Amino acid sequence: MWGMFNSVVYVSISSYLSLVTTVLIFLKLSTSLHIVSHLEHGRNDGKVACKEASPPESYISLNRISLLQLPDLLPTQNGEELTERFLHEVVSILLSYIKKTYDGKTKVLDFHHPHQLLEGLEGFSVELSDQPEPLEQILVDCRDTLKYGVKTGHPRYFNQLSSGLDIVGLAGEWLTATANTNMFTYEIAPVFIVMEEIILRKMQEIIGWGESEADGIFSPGGSISNLYSVLVARYKRYPEIKTKGMAAIPDIILFVSEHSHYSVKKAAAVLGIGMDNVIVVKCDERGKMIPSELEENIIQVKKQGKVPFYVSATAGTTVYGAFDPLVHIADICEKYNLWMHVDAAWGGGLLLSRRHSHKLSGIERANSVTWNPHKLMGVPLQCSAFLVREKGLLQACNQLCAGYLFQPDKQYDTAYDTGDKAIQCGRHVDVFKLWLMWRAKGTRGFETLINRFLELAEYLYKELKTRKNYELVFDAEPELTNVCFWYIPPSLQKIPKGPEREKRLHQVAPKIKARMIEEGTTMVSYQPHGNHVNFFRMVFSNPATKKSDVDFLLEEIERLGKDL
Amino acid sequence: MWGMFNSVVYVSISSYLSLVTTVLIFLKLSTSLHIVSHLEHGRNDGKVACKEASPPESYISLNRISLLQLPDLLPTQNGEELTERFLHEVVSILLSYIKKTYDGKTKVLDFHHPHQLLEGLEGFSVELSDQPEPLEQILVDCRDTLKYGVKTGHPRYFNQLSSGLDIVGLAGEWLTATANTNMFTYEIAPVFIVMEEIILRKMQEIIGWGESEADGIFSPGGSISNLYSVLVARYKRYPEIKTKGMAAIPDIILFVSEHSHYSVKKAAAVLGIGMDNVIVVKCDERGKMIPSELEENIIQVKKQGKVPFYVSATAGTTVYGAFDPLVHIADICEKYNLWMHVDAAWGGGLLLSRRHSHKLSGIERANSVTWNPHKLMGVPLQCSAFLVREKGLLQACNQLCAGYLFQPDKQYDTAYDTGDKAIQCGRHVDVFKLWLMWRAKGTRGFETLINRFLELAEYLYKELKTRKNYELVFDAEPELTNVCFWYIPPSLQKIPKGPEREKRLHQVAPKIKARMIEEGTTMVSYQPHGNHVNFFRMVFSNPATKKSDVDFLLEEIERLGKDL
Repeated sequence: MWGMFNSVVYVSISSYLSLVTTVLIFLKLSTSLHIVSHLEHGRNDGKVACKEASPPESYISLNRISLLQLPDLLPTQNGEELTERFLHEVVSILLSYIKKTYDGKTKVLDFHHPHQLLEGLEGFSVELSDQPEPLEQILVDCRDTLKYGVKTGHPRYFNQLSSGLDIVGLAGEWLTATANTNMFTYEIAPVFIVMEEIILRKMQEIIGWGESEADGIFSPGGSISNLYSVLVARYKRYPEIKTKGMAAIPDIILFVSEHSHYSVKKAAAVLGIGMDNVIVVKCDERGKMIPSELEENIIQVKKQGKVPFYVSATAGTTVYGAFDPLVHIADICEKYNLWMHVDAAWGGGLLLSRRHSHKLSGIERANSVTWNPHKLMGVPLQCSAFLVREKGLLQACNQLCAGYLFQPDKQYDTAYDTGDKAIQCGRHVDVFKLWLMWRAKGTRGFETLINRFLELAEYLYKELKTRKNYELVFDAEPELTNVCFWYIPPSLQKIPKGPEREKRLHQVAPKIKARMIEEGTTMVSYQPHGNHVNFFRMVFSNPATKKSDVDFLLEEIERLGKDL
Repeated sequence: MWGMFNSVVYVSISSYLSLVTTVLIFLKLSTSLHIVSHLEHGRNDGKVACKEASPPESYISLNRISLLQLPDLLPTQNGEELTERFLHEVVSILLSYIKKTYDGKTKVLDFHHPHQLLEGLEGFSVELSDQPEPLEQILVDCRDTLKYGVKTGHPRYFNQLSSGLDIVGLAGEWLTATANTNMFTYEIAPVFIVMEEIILRKMQEIIGWGESEADGIFSPGGSISNLYSVLVARYKRYPEIKTKGMAAIPDIILFVSEHSHYSVKKAAAVLGIGMDNVIVVKCDERGKMIPSELEENIIQVKKQGKVPFYVSATAGTTVYGAFDPLVHIADICEKYNLWMHVDAAWGGGLLLSRRHSHKLSGIERANSVTWNPHKLMGVPLQCSAFLVREKGLLQACNQLCAGYLFQPDKQYDTAYDTGDKAIQCGRHVDVFKLWLMWRAKGTRGFETLINRFLELAEYLYKELKTRKNYELVFDAEPELTNVCFWYIPPSLQKIPKGPEREKRLHQVAPKIKARMIEEGTTMVSYQPHGNHVNFFRMVFSNPATKKSDVDFLLEEIERLGKDL
């Protein structure tokens, strides 16, 4: 093992040596004042002896990067050294950003309005021109792009279901970019295709499906995965849809819950089914689909002469983090012969936790599942799996056998040319970062991570119950990491519950959020939902977040909102 | 300018210093034999003095990476140094791969069958387990993943329309991964959203559309961009489709050419239109749609009481590289009031060349355009733009106004929350690498690159005409970089043209390709097309390719195929 590691290190020696030279030259060149002032903040504590020297020959070598342009990099002859130095500079900028991201004392963002970014800021311009910029400017552009962006890995960034910056996942994404290939054929992505098979099989196994019967594909996000579910469900029941279109089949009806993600409705619009043919089933106070309501809706639809054919149950709703009662829904789907899809984009990660996986009981009876490792599992964006229990369906539904890609007379097993399963042609490699993270964490590592997120949610829930300026949207222990609440400023605490208070409360969260963004200290989402006025939705999916960050958030909301 | 560059360098000093230490320690540790033998292949020519020393304290520090695991990286307290060293190791592996990629003497691939990769190879296993692997193994996994993959940037990789590895584009992708954000709202991706606007506007301007009238979006590949074109065309004519579905509208008919990409048919299947409602218009020998055939088809369809409503013309077909006569097609679309889409996924790059852009004359009359910068412009995968001449249409067609993302009471101009234009919810940041490359190359840099690809195609075409063992599929100067040809082995040259020769010729390309892959020396695509038996399709989109690589390809085909 040590021998293998050695060989990895050997590979990097030559590049390290050029860095040694670069650094030594730089030390000679720079005024000692600058260097020492910088190093005082580094881990070497300024104990560097710098003596003045006349610029050596190699000054030019360092300075070259500012004079040269893209054509001097590879593939230009002798472009190796400059390429290496340019990429090392880029990596330095990225490392500096990563360190700032994890340093809780930095801001989450430095907000500017669109017109400000468009007009340009302190030498940062987004404009494009006919002529090239020097490489030096490209480095500055990289630094500034990060500077004016949002640190989504910051311990106090809670704005979306995807947050955090996993270092191994990041390494995986850098490698994916370097490999720069496409998932349509085994021919050009052999390792990634095999990894996709391994990962999909693992996920199917965890869902509880038998080993060889299932299938799946990584797609560009949960919405597209949900679209796949409707697409294959429709094809399974009416294979003629592929050639004849909707005109050849009866009016089909989809069922989702009030709290489901909007993507199933969007899919219905895209697929030519129409959003009116999506029935929205009522939820209980906790955001869970009510099975008896579902059944009643199905019966109604049948009476109207339409064909109920598909239910999307949610395992982890976007706002409340609710789990629909999957076993009950599975019973109903069986009874009425409906396709059962489970949108576990957000909650799927809980399957990896022995403590919490019971919340998804019944998922093994689903016909298809959406599960986004880029959410609770912390995989860099994007990484979404669509899984389907019946093998061959994806291929039959989507294949067109393009001669220029899927030649039947290849020398290898062309079942590994998975491209014809997709609605895409070229498909980005989304699987490698997940595979690499799984190697580095093991299933147990994901479990530890996810259990910790749940503990943080529980901590926040308990804190909110004890603090007098906060009100919970529903009072129940969190099942996922979502916690929904209002902040009630002192001025509102005197007003009795009623329309006037509601009207004013509705404006509180947006105002606090606007101030939060202006100050850049933290970010959390808010929204109205059903008949509830604007409330904050807190979620945990960031490995960097600690209890102290939760405390900070609550105090920051009070600080920013107490005068409202 | 120099001052700004300095500040970038300052940032990297501390990380460089730790590398200096690492390298010096390593030099002390290793036997001089190993080091020198390695450096002899480097650019320092083995002139390194190594003296033996007893292992210093820091030996452990270097060795730690093999003992530690993921939880020791950031966000763990004091994880900064290990994180930095781990990522530097990863980058060393990537740099070594990049150098090998550009070194024409290496193999393009080291082929293994799927079952071999699944079973495991010399310590490389794709299996996942419950327990974590040490970081050392993760580095080995990275190295091996690249080792058994395909070098798509290799000067002799000609297999797909996307090839090459642009260094600035790569840097852009590394930064994108590090920023790890999502394109749905301005709130969390301010800089990238603004860059998307700038780039889309630039592309619209180059197409020849007025500045403010048009719209667009980056999508996950050309097939999805083409799907968008049918989707918005349908919505424009029948806005009720969104709510009522296909049942509410008449039978609509799409027109494509025999040589068009299969994605429009796939879109028809997905969108519920049905593939039978896609009429395939005849092409001339060169692969261009015949306008009179299109018109005749339209008239036929109208007679059948169906509604012709959309034509997809191709600017650069996948196999022949043909340009449909856009002006003629635009005239017909106007006459019959059809939506005109131009699929310029492959040929769009030619718009950047003053010498070649005339081949797309008429594109300015299109209602929508697909243009993939990840093809001819050499942007890393993936990067595909869908452009539409009418502003507001994408939004109206796809928006669902999800409350948890698109809050109307935000403090900034929410027109910049572009997520509701998409059929996705989360959307990968595909624009930054293109923006950065445009800064580094300028429009003129792309022009130079693309002109060179065309020159290489012309060179190949002329070579094929002079070599007796080759036959062109059609004898015309290349309009794009595609050149299609047969290799005729000596044994076939004696057989007169006819079914027997065709049957044997059909087997030649696959056999040569199989040998090519086994040997790993080069990769080129082949396919049958129409009534033509299997032929090679050569394309140029790799900046590393030179004339000598073209010569190599032809000689390699002869070497591998002469006994057939």
